[in-house]
Amino acid sequence: MSKRAAVPLADMLKRGELFAVNCPSREVLKHVTSRWGVLVLVALLGGTHRFSELRRKVGGVSEKMLAQTLRVLEEDGFVLRKVYPTKPPRVEYSLTPFGRELAEHMRALTEFVQSNVGKVMAHRAKAEKVPA
Amino acid sequence: MSKRAAVPLADMLKRGELFAVNCPSREVLKHVTSRWGVLVLVALLGGTHRFSELRRKVGGVSEKMLAQTLRVLEEDGFVLRKVYPTKPPRVEYSLTPFGRELAEHMRALTEFVQSNVGKVMAHRAKAEKVPA
Repeated sequence: MSKRAAVPLADMLKRGELFAVNCPSREVLKHVTSRWGVLVLVALLGGTHRFSELRRKVGGVSEKMLAQTLRVLEEDGFVLRKVYPTKPPRVEYSLTPFGRELAEHMRALTEFVQSNVGKVMAHRAKAEKVPA
Repeated sequence: MSKRAAVPLADMLKRGELFAVNCPSREVLKHVTSRWGVLVLVALLGGTHRFSELRRKVGGVSEKMLAQTLRVLEEDGFVLRKVYPTKPPRVEYSLTPFGRELAEHMRALTEFVQSNVGKVMAHRAKAEKVPA
């Protein structure tokens, strides 16, 4: 058992401790680093999107997974869902100010990954040739 | 089928396109945003660690998952594994310069999550009271 696991929950809510096994911040990290969570956050930095627009932008996401990802990010307070009373109702998604802050961190991370994919692939190819 | 899926692989290796369904950068993002990958990268910002030290620091990780996480990060070029010919052999893990750059992005992200966990939990509690 980690010593950090003994931190009281009330303290963890003031400041999370991701190295502690029972800290609720682990759940938040899981949401925001999920396969589709990262891409949805970065996509929404481009502005307000309708569901179908997001689905087109984030290649390969299913309707079900996109809906689930958006719901979790909305419940966490990162995404705002607005329904307009048209027929059929128009639903739009955008970042909250708080979500924008998070998404900027995600953008820095995804930019790094995109810029360095060639380097990583070259490294992987070399690692596969030299067995440990 | 997304229009972006038509980007040739050679171009994606120059610069990844995370929104494209078949881009190899998605695999890299998966490695670095994995549950334990994030925490291992941030832990290694604190300096060189032995396996057992990492295991103590990252609460809840199993031997198997830690070994697997380290192997993937090593193959990607983010982590350096050094074996010293003592008896028994001493094995140490550290960040490569490239891995340090990645880990700094991760630290910014985890700091944000840790600092805001209370806000997110408050938002979640509210969301659970108001059914959509």
